[in-house]
Amino acid sequence: MKAVGIVVEYNPFHNGHLYHLQETKKKTGADCVIAVMSGNFLQRGEPALVSKWARTSMAISAGVDLVIELPYTFAVQSAERFATGAVALLDALYCAELCFGSENGEIEPFLQAVQTIKRQQSRYNQSIQQALKDGMSYPQAVTYACRQLEMKEIDLAQPNNILGFSYVKAIIEQKSAMVPQTIQRIASGYHDEVFSHPWIASATSLRKALNGAIEALEHISPYIPFSTKKALEKYYAVYGTFHRWEPYFPFLKYRIMTSEESDLQSIVGVDEGIEYRLKQAITEAETFEQFLHSVKTKRYTWTRLQRMCVHILTHFKKEQMNGIKSPSYIRLLGMSDNGRLYLQMIKKRLSLPLVTTVSRLQKDVIYQQEKKAVAAYTAIFSETTRIQALKEEYATPPVHFNSCK
Amino acid sequence: MKAVGIVVEYNPFHNGHLYHLQETKKKTGADCVIAVMSGNFLQRGEPALVSKWARTSMAISAGVDLVIELPYTFAVQSAERFATGAVALLDALYCAELCFGSENGEIEPFLQAVQTIKRQQSRYNQSIQQALKDGMSYPQAVTYACRQLEMKEIDLAQPNNILGFSYVKAIIEQKSAMVPQTIQRIASGYHDEVFSHPWIASATSLRKALNGAIEALEHISPYIPFSTKKALEKYYAVYGTFHRWEPYFPFLKYRIMTSEESDLQSIVGVDEGIEYRLKQAITEAETFEQFLHSVKTKRYTWTRLQRMCVHILTHFKKEQMNGIKSPSYIRLLGMSDNGRLYLQMIKKRLSLPLVTTVSRLQKDVIYQQEKKAVAAYTAIFSETTRIQALKEEYATPPVHFNSCK
Repeated sequence: MKAVGIVVEYNPFHNGHLYHLQETKKKTGADCVIAVMSGNFLQRGEPALVSKWARTSMAISAGVDLVIELPYTFAVQSAERFATGAVALLDALYCAELCFGSENGEIEPFLQAVQTIKRQQSRYNQSIQQALKDGMSYPQAVTYACRQLEMKEIDLAQPNNILGFSYVKAIIEQKSAMVPQTIQRIASGYHDEVFSHPWIASATSLRKALNGAIEALEHISPYIPFSTKKALEKYYAVYGTFHRWEPYFPFLKYRIMTSEESDLQSIVGVDEGIEYRLKQAITEAETFEQFLHSVKTKRYTWTRLQRMCVHILTHFKKEQMNGIKSPSYIRLLGMSDNGRLYLQMIKKRLSLPLVTTVSRLQKDVIYQQEKKAVAAYTAIFSETTRIQALKEEYATPPVHFNSCK
Repeated sequence: MKAVGIVVEYNPFHNGHLYHLQETKKKTGADCVIAVMSGNFLQRGEPALVSKWARTSMAISAGVDLVIELPYTFAVQSAERFATGAVALLDALYCAELCFGSENGEIEPFLQAVQTIKRQQSRYNQSIQQALKDGMSYPQAVTYACRQLEMKEIDLAQPNNILGFSYVKAIIEQKSAMVPQTIQRIASGYHDEVFSHPWIASATSLRKALNGAIEALEHISPYIPFSTKKALEKYYAVYGTFHRWEPYFPFLKYRIMTSEESDLQSIVGVDEGIEYRLKQAITEAETFEQFLHSVKTKRYTWTRLQRMCVHILTHFKKEQMNGIKSPSYIRLLGMSDNGRLYLQMIKKRLSLPLVTTVSRLQKDVIYQQEKKAVAAYTAIFSETTRIQALKEEYATPPVHFNSCK
């Protein structure tokens, strides 16, 4: 059996994801698709619309064979670390290829870009540092450094390109045997916030349309598979919400106001004295958006600030992160019959423990942070609902294909 | 002018307090009554029913001349530290006497008890340590130690007696010139939870009757002055609640669940490995009361656990507390015309800064903790109400008698 790996957030799963999934199978001829997926919080520093279990069931229903959790400590991170964790997991699962979406669908420019940078690594790093020092945001600094290297292969300032680039770079650095592949993205830009296609829309626009409530579900249904719609309905029926930042703001505010500057300074992403700006802005901010606006300067991207706020909310400390270099376990969130078969085949060759229940992870430093992420994610529920959600995290066995029908 | 000091919580101010206030004036012949009052959280580890400003206005309306805030770092503490802070403040304000309520109204037994213990201090300490080691709670240990010393003057296991004893002890230890006085308490036991007198009821029973809402205000009005009733109504109209522990539980739960054991261990009151019990019990607890029940053992009193929870909620760290030996400022919350006159008289002789607006305290380590207490206290409000409550903390000038009419 040949496996191909993909890296996803499925927030929520939509027709564009389905297209990518089907094209991936076609292009690679793989018999098994393994998706590494972020959990409660996403790469861009936002709570996931619905739980990892609901998103796993969307994935399995749509044809993914195995869903593996990308731990919080790699998921809520800039592209480089995000890719490091995802590639390590897919490699550990013996994927033959890794396939990601890109703007033009050609892998060659990514390979060349990585080589160009590797050849002039120190000059590239210097340019980045200089640009950051001059007050540029990270994406701006990358663009600047690429210009310095006269790199023409690819525009790394595009979020999708930087992710693809990072996967390829991680594959090379980790000396993985995986072959990188790419598929051209369909119809919708990453940040599109309006519907401009009859059946493809970005996850951002879908979340925006939902805005935390069920009412707009019919409105977005042309853009999502029926199984996604069912999973969203089911989640809403039990938990009464689609998650977004604003309901977490009281907890963020409480946390920042009851922390000293030195406490904040120990949190991942709180750098360059921003703790003083946080303390100053928090008292009078009425909403999360207002707060971020008053903290934002040219130097920080919105995404970077959101990630920092998630780390404050989940109390993710620098000293914790510094101790974590790569994933220490493979947490299985869901599988199809096919995925189960594949697992049985490779089980004995696995170099990381395959985990289906988290009870054995209680002392794992990566899972420690996962628990804190779950605690923060469920904080907005009523106590009875919260206890149920926590039980789901601690006791749910992997979603199996049949369980989604 | 002669001033007398009292130590109060006024949670809420009731007829028993009024009686104590009037008897204090009679007994001491003082022209000015100075009350040191706890702020957002109380000695027993509970949020104050209403804000410090509302309680100050009750006090001034009823005839107190000056209301001084007992900082959080001394207020939410066992009797000894509570008394240390209160006595230091009253002494700094040149009170000639300090007058407290007691079961039998005689000061002599308190003086003798302090002398008995001072004479055999090391034996007393040893007995306490031994008893605690044997798994007794602190009040049990005190009773045991007093029995060892054959002390018959006073039963220190009574909460009111231990407070009175601590005031007298602090006066002696601080070499204060204040003369301790006591007045017999009227009608109602400290812990009485039922109404058994036509116009006197304990603060505990009044809070219990209110249970967070306005409906029972008429029911408790025989037991409180009209001005208290007005102040309660006014507070409820603006803030929509009378504070109690339960609404804070989601924040406590969030805090405990997103803290490592080592974080909890750095908090005041988290000792003897209780952090593991906290982490274990918190996930499944649906209410604060349920949580405390599942954490409680013979060794811990309910009050001690409540205080610990308040410290976790406000993030009060041991290293902070260890740096604080005595109050560093006198924060004026309210005054009558008479009180203002007294202040003008003693102003130049004050050894601690008299503070009416907190802007000058931003770097004071004691006020740092006060800010965190305010942040926690206001966390249960909606954002707009919360911003208003925070402004009140930071910008309210002392309540003046006329402003209460």
